[in-house]
This record gives sequence, structure tokens and C-alpha cells, in this order.
Amino acid sequence: MTVVRAALLGFGTVGQGIYSIAQQRREQLKQRLGGVELVIVKILVRDLRKRSRVLPDRCASDAKLLTDDIEDVFRADVQVIFEATVGEEPAFTYLQRAIVEHGCSVITANKVMFARYGAALQELAASCTPTSSFPATRVYVGFEATVAAGVPIIKTLQNMCHVQQVRKIEGIVNGTSNYILTELREHPEKTFEEVLKKAQELGYAEADPTNDVAGQDAFVKLLVMVAIAFGHQPSRSTIPVTGIDTLTPEMLQDARAKGLRYRHVVSAAMEGAATSSCAPKSSAAEEEEAQSRTRPLHERLTCSVKPMLLGPEHPLYHMDGTTSAVSVWTDYLGVVTISGPGAGMYCTASAMMEDYAVWMEAFRRP
Amino acid sequence: MTVVRAALLGFGTVGQGIYSIAQQRREQLKQRLGGVELVIVKILVRDLRKRSRVLPDRCASDAKLLTDDIEDVFRADVQVIFEATVGEEPAFTYLQRAIVEHGCSVITANKVMFARYGAALQELAASCTPTSSFPATRVYVGFEATVAAGVPIIKTLQNMCHVQQVRKIEGIVNGTSNYILTELREHPEKTFEEVLKKAQELGYAEADPTNDVAGQDAFVKLLVMVAIAFGHQPSRSTIPVTGIDTLTPEMLQDARAKGLRYRHVVSAAMEGAATSSCAPKSSAAEEEEAQSRTRPLHERLTCSVKPMLLGPEHPLYHMDGTTSAVSVWTDYLGVVTISGPGAGMYCTASAMMEDYAVWMEAFRRP
Repeated sequence: MTVVRAALLGFGTVGQGIYSIAQQRREQLKQRLGGVELVIVKILVRDLRKRSRVLPDRCASDAKLLTDDIEDVFRADVQVIFEATVGEEPAFTYLQRAIVEHGCSVITANKVMFARYGAALQELAASCTPTSSFPATRVYVGFEATVAAGVPIIKTLQNMCHVQQVRKIEGIVNGTSNYILTELREHPEKTFEEVLKKAQELGYAEADPTNDVAGQDAFVKLLVMVAIAFGHQPSRSTIPVTGIDTLTPEMLQDARAKGLRYRHVVSAAMEGAATSSCAPKSSAAEEEEAQSRTRPLHERLTCSVKPMLLGPEHPLYHMDGTTSAVSVWTDYLGVVTISGPGAGMYCTASAMMEDYAVWMEAFRRP
Repeated sequence: MTVVRAALLGFGTVGQGIYSIAQQRREQLKQRLGGVELVIVKILVRDLRKRSRVLPDRCASDAKLLTDDIEDVFRADVQVIFEATVGEEPAFTYLQRAIVEHGCSVITANKVMFARYGAALQELAASCTPTSSFPATRVYVGFEATVAAGVPIIKTLQNMCHVQQVRKIEGIVNGTSNYILTELREHPEKTFEEVLKKAQELGYAEADPTNDVAGQDAFVKLLVMVAIAFGHQPSRSTIPVTGIDTLTPEMLQDARAKGLRYRHVVSAAMEGAATSSCAPKSSAAEEEEAQSRTRPLHERLTCSVKPMLLGPEHPLYHMDGTTSAVSVWTDYLGVVTISGPGAGMYCTASAMMEDYAVWMEAFRRP
């Protein structure tokens, strides 16, 4: 029987979700993955005294898994790390070391870190040759959970990009902002502050909501998607970021009167994206496109994060509440839209566990 | 340089689409798949004289690829077959022989054949040990294109099922029916016959539309999805199939008056599916579920194909026109919905080419 030794970095909501799912789905995963068993052997926390308390009662014996020293994790000879901490560091340093020094796969939900260092981590992993004792033939970097949690947009984009050429992406990727916009539309009598307060009470918004309502959270998710869809990450300073906190009651009233809806949309579009469709291209269009391709990509790609006024024909028009949704326009397909829950303990954690399963399904040693 | 030798079975709309995409994306695929190059070496057609004409002018020299003898295909030592014919036979016999006698991978868009023989083909492929000259470590069966063409529901379901437990699937998987229902709602003055005629003129409906409007096309797609989501295919005779041709003008009028919409929905639901959500389960719910699991799956799974009356809160309510869309409810995620173009030359063909790329990406020999 093959055992895959795993560590969790971070044991907040998402880390605890992974821990639970690993218990709950032990048999299901083993059965689907040729008998390979996932065992969590270390959990890195910041404060050992605080975290011991959160392990479920029945797993009190697992308290010995907890550590506040990353060296303990590496000494435990782990083969995959689930990283669910916040911020660029020390996450990047830890994952970089995991890959380079230990040939370890990494699966992350940390969008801020990944938007900055995703390409670097993927390059490091690609240049790793796994040792023969490693359970898979490839060192893997999984990051489905960095964008829209339970909405499987990352793998869908990766698969599409083998064959399709992406023309445009538009997405609602911040549940808090979408919840607030939905409430403001449905309850015109409420103020932004009242709705924000309700979002906080319901646990949708953080105590400090700036990151969500000013668009920074959506911005880093856009960066992650653009890197896959266009194989290129534009300079951050070229992307205007506007949050929903710029919308006035008059603007919302005006939208209502016109039957339009404000959505907070991250967008990346290639020149001429509006004309693409599922239909085969005319040779004139093909030629024009070929010509435009000689110009560097960053000149042809326009990205933005902002409230957009959408009509009923837009695939994101109907996406209400805390839903996340991403639409992708490609040359062969026209538009494909994926929507679902963009946040939540089990949504995010199960997306990370799916990364593990997809890796093990494809690359486990025979 | 590794070359993968491919054959097309069928050279209608979809087959020609694959042929074009293989030319158009030669470099993109090669670059993304470690230098592996796809070369189409045979094209099986039914009528050699008729088909020679459809090869694009610039590819006249490729006329020598055409054959009407399956033995020519096997003699060409192909490693992957793209099958885009219609009906159970001879497709199944050909693909079975390809796998068993030649250790060849198969990628199909043939839903009627796959709904009947999908499990058999997958079992045959799983028991194949590829020869060392085979470009991949696994003989593969790709069937993304059997359901909703460009909507990547098959791979999404496969990935989900590693970790999630699917509670319910509901889908609009017949573009013709959805187009007709949309037109009837938006133009109450039109009759079913008028709208059907328009659908035929636009190329959405076949000359004989029975398969679409009576629900048989949707039915076989449901069978394919159920096999993935529940690891089990219910007996066909237990699934009631009702088409949109059963709706009367009075029923449509009544729906309109209530603000509801008829959609033609394929559905598969586990007992108690209505109560599932993204939230962690109570231990009482977990226990109840564990108990119910002791009963055989076919007693707990209810499938149907029928017009359903949906309210605005339903994820399929807004899916108008020829769109296909599938919603999947799972225990960890709540509901995820994917929508896009459910038919079309390039949509279907590019889905098949994505199958090839995903296979080659995961399983090509180092």
C-alpha cells in the first residue's frame, strides 16, 4: 500500500476543513486513487497553545501533529503540502523550500502569495525530477482554491488553453462585493453601510472589509487567471482597480431605472475580443488576427477590476448573492460560464483536496 | 520528436472540425504537450466518392488519407481514434477492436453508443497495458463531447467525484428543445410548429426532430452523466422520458402568468438531495445518511427527463436559447453550474481535441 505523507500549513477555517475531509473521505480517495492513502503527518500553526484546542475531540490524539516549527514539517519527510495561510510570506519561502529542497508537491489556497509567485513555483516544480521513492512522477503545484474556491475555473481554463485561444475573461470573484451589490439592488432603501454591516454579521465580510470592497481581493484573482489564459502576467501598475465603494446611490438608482445591474467584474480582453464567436473565422479575420499577433501581448491585452453595468444578455447579469462566476470567451467555443460558491470552509478545502486527487490520478507511479 | 498517429472515424461536421483544428493548432498543441505532435493518418468515411469533395482545397493531397475500410485504419498503426459517427454500430465494434486488438486510445462524440457501451469501453481500456512504443502510459477513453459539446461537464464531474458526493444533477442538454421553449415564451403568438420550423431553418433542429423534442437525445446524455456522478447506470426502463412536445399552449400561458419558465431538464437525484448544502453536516444528518447508504443505490436514485417548471431562484431558469447548462449539487460545494454552447462543429470538435490534450498532458511517456 502506498502512503502519501501530507502536511498542512495553517490550521484556520480552511486547514481544519482539509483535515476533516481527509478523515471523511479516506476510503473514497483510496478507492479512486489505486489504493494510495493520504495521511496528514504534520500541521504547522503559528501559536501552538491556541491551536491545540481546535482539533476535534475524537482526534485529541492528533495533537502531536501540531508544530510551530517549519523544520518539523520538513523533517517529517512530507510529499505534499496543503498551504492555507495568509499573505506572501512566509508562505512563499516555505513552499519554495518544499519544492527545491524536498521535491515536495504543493497545493495552495493563498491567492496573494500565488498571484506574486505562482509562475516561480510552477517553474521550480517543472524542473524537479522526483526521486524514485516519491509517489508520483511529477512534482505538482495545485492552486484551484486561489480563485473562487468551489468554482472549478482553474482546471477548466488549463484544459481549454491546450486547444482554445482565449479572447476574454470576465468574472465575479469576490462574494462579499456581489452580496452587497445584490442587497443594494433588492433593497433600495438600505445604505451601503447598513448592507456592509449585515454582510459582516453573516460572516461574508471581514471586520476590515477594505480588501473586498476596494477590489484588491478580486485583483489578485484576476492576475492568477490571466497568467493561465494568456500565458503572461501584465504589470500590476497597468491594471486600474476600482472597488464597489465608488458607487453612489444615484448611480445605483440610475441602473435600476434602466433595467441594468452593477456587478463587480474582473476583466481581461484581447484586442477584437467582441467579434469572436463559435463560428469558423473568415480568412480576412484570420489574417487580421495573425497580423495583430506580431505585436507584443501586453499591448493587445486590456485588464481591469471595476463595477460594470450589465444588461440581461450578459452571462454574469443573473449571478446574485455570494455566488462567484467566471465567463470565458474562446475562439472555438464562444462563451462558457461557471458559477458556484466562491467561499466557505468546505468549498475551499474540497477544491484543494480535488487538486490532490487530480494530481494523484494522473501522475501516481504505476 | 514523438508523433501520435491518429485516425478519424466519420468525416461529417464534427470530423471535419477535428481535421481543421488539428491543422490550426498544430504548433500550440506541440508546444504545450512536450513536443508531441498529432498527425492524422487515416479518415474513415462511408462513401469514398462523396467525401473526397469536402477536404479543403489546400489539403487536396490529403485525399489519400480517406478510406472506407476500417482495416486500413488498423493497418495504419494508429494510437488514437477520434470517433464522430452516429449510432451504436459499427462504432462500438470498431472502438472495442481498437482498444483490445491494437491498444489504441479512443475519443468519442457518439453519445448513443457511449450511453450503451461507455462502461464496457472504459473497462477494456483500464485492463490494457500499453506497449512501450505507445506514446502514453495509459490507454484512454475520452468522451467530453458526448454531453453538451463545449460545456466541460464531463471532466468537471470526474474531478469532483474524487472528493465530493454528488446529491443531484439537473441539466439542459438539448439545445433544440431549449431554443424552442425560449421562443415560445418570448413570442406567445407563435405556435410550436412555427417555432420548430424556424429552428430547422436555422440549422438547430434536424429534418426529423423527434429525437430532440421527444427527449431521447437528452436521455442518453443523462445516462452518461449518471454513470460518472453515481458510479452506476440505472435501468433504462425505470427512467420516465417526456419531451417538450407534450406541453400545451395553456400550460405555457399558465407558466408565463406565474413568472415561471418551462425548461427541458434531465435530472438525477439521491434521496434527501434537497437538504444538502455547503455547510458541514450535523451528526444526526450524517448518521441518517450512513444508514440510508446501506440500501442499494438504485433504490435511492431517481432519474427523469421532462419539462420542469422553474422559478427565478433555480440556476437553470435564466439559460435561454440554444445554451446547454448543467447544475451539480454536492455535499461540500452546494451547487455548481456550467453553461455554454451545447452544439456546433467547432465546439464539439474542440472538446474532443481537449480530451486528446488532457490525456497527453497527464499520461505521455517522459
